[in-house]
Amino acid sequence: MKAQEKTDQVTPEVRERVQSSFDRQGLMTHLGARLTRIEPGRVHITLPSRPEVTQQNGYVHAGATSAIADSAGGYAAFTLFPDDTSVLTVEYKINLLAPAEGDHVEAVGTVLKPGRTLTVCNLEVFAVRDGERKLVATGQQTLICVPKRPDQ
Amino acid sequence: MKAQEKTDQVTPEVRERVQSSFDRQGLMTHLGARLTRIEPGRVHITLPSRPEVTQQNGYVHAGATSAIADSAGGYAAFTLFPDDTSVLTVEYKINLLAPAEGDHVEAVGTVLKPGRTLTVCNLEVFAVRDGERKLVATGQQTLICVPKRPDQ
Amino acid sequence: MKAQEKTDQVTPEVRERVQSSFDRQGLMTHLGARLTRIEPGRVHITLPSRPEVTQQNGYVHAGATSAIADSAGGYAAFTLFPDDTSVLTVEYKINLLAPAEGDHVEAVGTVLKPGRTLTVCNLEVFAVRDGERKLVATGQQTLICVPKRPDQ
Amino acid sequence: MKAQEKTDQVTPEVRERVQSSFDRQGLMTHLGARLTRIEPGRVHITLPSRPEVTQQNGYVHAGATSAIADSAGGYAAFTLFPDDTSVLTVEYKINLLAPAEGDHVEAVGTVLKPGRTLTVCNLEVFAVRDGERKLVATGQQTLICVPKRPDQ
Repeated sequence: MKAQEKTDQVTPEVRERVQSSFDRQGLMTHLGARLTRIEPGRVHITLPSRPEVTQQNGYVHAGATSAIADSAGGYAAFTLFPDDTSVLTVEYKINLLAPAEGDHVEAVGTVLKPGRTLTVCNLEVFAVRDGERKLVATGQQTLICVPKRPDQ
Repeated sequence: MKAQEKTDQVTPEVRERVQSSFDRQGLMTHLGARLTRIEPGRVHITLPSRPEVTQQNGYVHAGATSAIADSAGGYAAFTLFPDDTSVLTVEYKINLLAPAEGDHVEAVGTVLKPGRTLTVCNLEVFAVRDGERKLVATGQQTLICVPKRPDQ
Repeated sequence: MKAQEKTDQVTPEVRERVQSSFDRQGLMTHLGARLTRIEPGRVHITLPSRPEVTQQNGYVHAGATSAIADSAGGYAAFTLFPDDTSVLTVEYKINLLAPAEGDHVEAVGTVLKPGRTLTVCNLEVFAVRDGERKLVATGQQTLICVPKRPDQ
Repeated sequence: MKAQEKTDQVTPEVRERVQSSFDRQGLMTHLGARLTRIEPGRVHITLPSRPEVTQQNGYVHAGATSAIADSAGGYAAFTLFPDDTSVLTVEYKINLLAPAEGDHVEAVGTVLKPGRTLTVCNLEVFAVRDGERKLVATGQQTLICVPKRPDQ
C-alpha cells in the first residue's frame, strides 16, 4: 500500500464511530440513505430516488437533499474530531441549483477549515442518472465539536 | 365577520392549491408532516417526534427540521403567488439553536418581502412539549415564482 | 425610573466597552458610521449616504450595508458577553431586499439566541428618507465569544 | 495564442463594461480596492491593508472583506451577462475563517452556476503576506440579471 493511500483512509475506529452514529439516525434509515464513502474530512451519502422523498413535481425534495447534505458535512467533520466528542450542526446555507432528478442523489461533505471548536464544510449534492453526475445543490456549513455526553 | 379577519384568510382556491401541492410531496407524507395553518404569507407545518425522524441522539434530525421549514416558507410564498405559477426554493440558511426535543416540532414560514420574481421568507421552528414552545431553529429563505409547467 | 427601563439599559461599563471597541474600528470611521443606540442585546449603527459608500448606481453599496449590519450584530452580542472577552463573527448571511437609497441607512443587530460560546443575531438594515424607514436588507449572523488577548 | 487561452479571456467590451461599472462604485475607490483580474466567470479584487479598513484588533474588517467578496462575485457573474443588463446581489453568506492579516487581501468571485435569471457564485478571500496566500473567508452568493435602466 502506498503512503498516499494510507493518508486518505480513516482508521477502523473512526469508520466505526461514524457508521454507528449514522446507523442511530432514524431519519437516514427512514429516507433510505446510505453512507457510501468515509475519508478523512470527506463523507459521501447516497439516497435512491423514490416516491417517499419527492416534492410536488416528483423531484427529490429540497428537504431530503438538504438532510443528506447536512449529515454528509457533519460526518466529514466528525472524521477529524478527537475521541469522546460529538458533532452538532451550528448552521448551514444551501443553494438549490437544478431539479434533483435521476436514479439517486449523492451528497458530498468536505471539510474546508477544521478547527478545535468550529469546523466549516463545503456541501455538494449531485443527481446521478445512468452514471452521469449533475450538481444540483451547493452549500456551506458550520459545525461545533462538543464533549460526548455520558449517555451516548 | 370583521374586515380584519377576512384579510387574514386565504381564499378557498389558494387553500386548495397549497394543500394539493403539499399532498403531492411524498417526503412530507413519509415524514408524517401536516399543514396546520395557511394564512396569506404565513404557513405552519407540524411534525410529530418519532423514531423515523431522529438524529443520532434521539432529537429531531436537522434535516427533518429543515425540510418542514423549507416547505413552510415555500408555501407561505405560494399563498401570495398568482394562478398558474409554481414555487421553487432558490436557497435557504438555517441556524440550529437548540436540540429539537418534544412531542412535535412546528415550522412557521413567513413572507418578509414579497416580489414578482423573488420572495424572501423568515423561517422558524419550535419544539413543543406539553404546549410549551421553544425556538429551536431560525432561518432565511429565497424563493422564485416560475410559470406552472403544462404537466403540473 | 421604572424597573422596566432599567433593564433596557446597558451599564456604563458595557457602553464604554462597546464604544471604545467601535472607535478602534478604522473601517467604521472611514465609512462615516456612528453607533446610535446601545441596549442589552441590541445595537444600532447609522451610516449617512454619501458618494464614498455607493455602488455603481448611486445606492449605498451592499458591502457598506453589510459592514454596518455585521458590526451592529457583533456589538449586540458583545453587550451580553462577560468582561475580558472579545467577539468574532463566525459567519453571516444577508438578503438585499431593495436598493438602499435615502439620507442614511441604519443597521439594527438584535440577539436572537445568546449562548456561552455561540450567539445568533438577527440583522436588519433600513434606508431612511425624511424620517421614513424602509427595510432594505435582512440577515442572520453567528458570533463567537473568545477570551480577550493580553494585547487588547 | 492558443485556443485555450482565448477562451479564458473576456472580450474588450466585457472588460470595459466591468471596469467602468467598478469605477463608478464609490465604495471600492474609498476603500482602496482594485480590480486585478477579469476572466469569463471569474474576477479578482485586491484591497491593501491599511488603518482605514480595520476592525478593533487591527485586522481587515469583515465588512471590508465581505464588500470586496460581494463585488468580486457580482462582477464574475456580470462577465457572463448579455449587453444592456445589470447585476444585483440577491443574497450572500460568508464564513470568516481566520483573521485577515497581511499586506493585502484578495477576493476571488467564481461563477458556480450561470443562469438566465439567477447566477450562483463561490466567494473566496485570501490574506496575502510576502506572497503567501491564506484563505480567510469563504462564501456563496446569489445574483440576479436585470434589464439595464435607461439612466445607467
